[in-house]
Amino acid sequence: MEKVGSTSPGWYDGFRGRDVISARDFSREDYEALFRYADLYEEDPGFYRGLLKDCIAALVFVEPSTRTFHSFETAARILGCGVTAIRDPSMSSIAKGESLHDTIKMIESYGASIIILRHPARGAALYAAEISRVPVINAGDGSREHPTQAMLDLYTIARKRGGIDGLRIAFLGDLRFSRTVSSLSYALSSFKDIEIFYIAPPILQIRREVKIYLDDRGVEYKEIIDMDKAREILRSVDVLYVTRLQKERFPDPSEYEKLKGAYTVGPEILSIMRSDAGIMHPLPRVDELSPELDSKPNAWYFDQARWGLNVRVALLSLILR
Amino acid sequence: MEKVGSTSPGWYDGFRGRDVISARDFSREDYEALFRYADLYEEDPGFYRGLLKDCIAALVFVEPSTRTFHSFETAARILGCGVTAIRDPSMSSIAKGESLHDTIKMIESYGASIIILRHPARGAALYAAEISRVPVINAGDGSREHPTQAMLDLYTIARKRGGIDGLRIAFLGDLRFSRTVSSLSYALSSFKDIEIFYIAPPILQIRREVKIYLDDRGVEYKEIIDMDKAREILRSVDVLYVTRLQKERFPDPSEYEKLKGAYTVGPEILSIMRSDAGIMHPLPRVDELSPELDSKPNAWYFDQARWGLNVRVALLSLILR
Amino acid sequence: MEKVGSTSPGWYDGFRGRDVISARDFSREDYEALFRYADLYEEDPGFYRGLLKDCIAALVFVEPSTRTFHSFETAARILGCGVTAIRDPSMSSIAKGESLHDTIKMIESYGASIIILRHPARGAALYAAEISRVPVINAGDGSREHPTQAMLDLYTIARKRGGIDGLRIAFLGDLRFSRTVSSLSYALSSFKDIEIFYIAPPILQIRREVKIYLDDRGVEYKEIIDMDKAREILRSVDVLYVTRLQKERFPDPSEYEKLKGAYTVGPEILSIMRSDAGIMHPLPRVDELSPELDSKPNAWYFDQARWGLNVRVALLSLILR
Repeated sequence: MEKVGSTSPGWYDGFRGRDVISARDFSREDYEALFRYADLYEEDPGFYRGLLKDCIAALVFVEPSTRTFHSFETAARILGCGVTAIRDPSMSSIAKGESLHDTIKMIESYGASIIILRHPARGAALYAAEISRVPVINAGDGSREHPTQAMLDLYTIARKRGGIDGLRIAFLGDLRFSRTVSSLSYALSSFKDIEIFYIAPPILQIRREVKIYLDDRGVEYKEIIDMDKAREILRSVDVLYVTRLQKERFPDPSEYEKLKGAYTVGPEILSIMRSDAGIMHPLPRVDELSPELDSKPNAWYFDQARWGLNVRVALLSLILR
Repeated sequence: MEKVGSTSPGWYDGFRGRDVISARDFSREDYEALFRYADLYEEDPGFYRGLLKDCIAALVFVEPSTRTFHSFETAARILGCGVTAIRDPSMSSIAKGESLHDTIKMIESYGASIIILRHPARGAALYAAEISRVPVINAGDGSREHPTQAMLDLYTIARKRGGIDGLRIAFLGDLRFSRTVSSLSYALSSFKDIEIFYIAPPILQIRREVKIYLDDRGVEYKEIIDMDKAREILRSVDVLYVTRLQKERFPDPSEYEKLKGAYTVGPEILSIMRSDAGIMHPLPRVDELSPELDSKPNAWYFDQARWGLNVRVALLSLILR
Repeated sequence: MEKVGSTSPGWYDGFRGRDVISARDFSREDYEALFRYADLYEEDPGFYRGLLKDCIAALVFVEPSTRTFHSFETAARILGCGVTAIRDPSMSSIAKGESLHDTIKMIESYGASIIILRHPARGAALYAAEISRVPVINAGDGSREHPTQAMLDLYTIARKRGGIDGLRIAFLGDLRFSRTVSSLSYALSSFKDIEIFYIAPPILQIRREVKIYLDDRGVEYKEIIDMDKAREILRSVDVLYVTRLQKERFPDPSEYEKLKGAYTVGPEILSIMRSDAGIMHPLPRVDELSPELDSKPNAWYFDQARWGLNVRVALLSLILR
């Protein structure tokens, strides 16, 4: 990869001033440039410190979040940005019924350089970006997309595995309502020879819109419902990406109880998977991923979470500098 | 107007070290000085940046707020103040029953330079100012007063209209429980030839204490209940100031349903009002003010919200420098 | 006492890099060093300003708090640390069931220099310290311990009284569930000739584990249930430390109503206690301590709260520099 840093001839311009709404909006070149800048966060920690003067990052989080909120907040602070946060809907105008439109106009008029939005409604980030004159980053909109999570997921795979091309990845759990799975699927379509396995019960299988997109881009994927078949597939994948099966998604609770065991990942998975395969999870987890795995080299999820900071420092600097 | 700024012979001293509890406490000279310093925020943005070193602004918000909170927070940060916030009553000692007295003493003992208080109880800000040795700004106390909102409202009128004297203004909606309407009415009494029209159903008409004050100061006002009369008046006013009619204020919900339409302002208002008249709203709005008006030159409310920052930067600097 | 400050030959090393989990973990020498550094906060305010560069204090408060939160936040800011806060459990991953383990790992991976934790579960701070590679400060774990409160309590006594040795102290109220009373009792055991009187109804008397500890360390203490006896003792104590009797602790509410009066402290206490005795309270108070006492020289509780800042500035600097 091309070298970046203070001695580099110039910045990568592909993110400059852009919104980050969907993982579909970025090219392989964009992702690879982002990874180089994410690497730089560790190689030369001084490079990013205070890089962006007079910038204000507005974090508008109309839904619970710890990890995404704090990694964006920390990234903004490292870069020297002021941070202003609207977090608790019960204490804000949102509780009085203010429209997202007016909230975005207000944030902007108080001088924000960038708006980072988490919102329960589908399409909220796109709508905000249309209103706002400053860039908007989608930090999760309903069950649709979470593109910066896809970026850090890709970065983790690239760094652990040496690259993305030729990846065989299995997603396990609630794929229908997981914005993480949709966004990563979209992002993977920019790379070569990807094979995706969606392991989920029928009512929680990957959404039709994602499949249409993958078909259009010629990405190979399979939906797996049978758990014996799933186990067979897990023998050969590079990555198992786990998400939580939520009880409240099942019309019939007994259906959930029946499936629960098969969708809980414990140490026995290691005897099935390849020794160099990785286990990923967007976190927070509840009980779908056993703490007994935490100390194994196959547990990539803590590095994955940690590297979210690298990726967000890089992304903010590439958009705002 | 006299020129201010770094080359000016001296600062205006009328706000120095003062509490801001009621719009009744300020003179025409105070308001006009404040407007000059608010203009300066746009004319010479560098003037205010980092002006106040070693200052800590404590924001104590025991009631929902987005706009007021964030514009004070942003203003304090622009001036170089540290910001400490007590916002969510459910996570604070207030939830354990701590008295406002002890909260104010604590905030003060941790080194606050100024306390900005929003509180649901009438007179809370005045009480806090009596306890505190540092200045207190009332950011809304129950339905009584919101003096910095009155300041930004006045500033908006002065800037859009070229001055306040001779203003004809109609207030529409829930005038009884609106602290915004009370405070702006008080503030207007410092200017000449003001005419105020209070358009509201009888149970939501302007409070007696406001009328007594206006009578004492010789300000002309009328209470309007009949909507045909109201429409007649709207033909000639300079400003229509809209507030929300809240369903929960009506003992009989059918009464609310009957009135609702007449107190909702849509694009048809433009065919009634003068072409140079302005529509104002303290925001947030819910559905009393149609988004179809947003792009019209008569919609002053987004500028009004935005200029809140100018006014609060100016006010904090005049109190604290 | 030995002089500290910029001209001092060296820092006290007893706190460097340590966790602060229990008041049992510190020696007389530690406490006395801490007091000298706490004094220094007033003697030479410039000494601490910006002392710790590139430090990030993470405040994780999974339980209501105003005073402890804000004094730690203010102390960290004075020292030049960035502050990142996880406060409202309803807006964070904790609401999604994330384990404390994963929260601590996340906080750490985002670069925290120190973690300050308030948590409702017993032993939460100890557990966090075992996971974390950076120091952890226990800011209250259930009803067990609150060691930094003990530090500021001791500092208040030392400063008001000239020293700790020979102290006669009475604790009044709910001693069983008060982490403040446990931690201060432990801390007092490092000093000489201490006499402790625990005044409480039987169901709210001091916990067995505290008594065992005091017995082991040879500290004299008495449990007092009879209120006539209590009044007799109050004549001679140096300090009366008041905590709240909470109605919800009593299985029988009428029992609470009967006792309530005897556990409420008003101005009449001054005719019983020695004229130089002090009244302390961890605050917030509700109605167990009358505001009529506030202006008396015996009311030490506002200084006690205020000096929390001195002690926390000193402690953070001693751990992190």
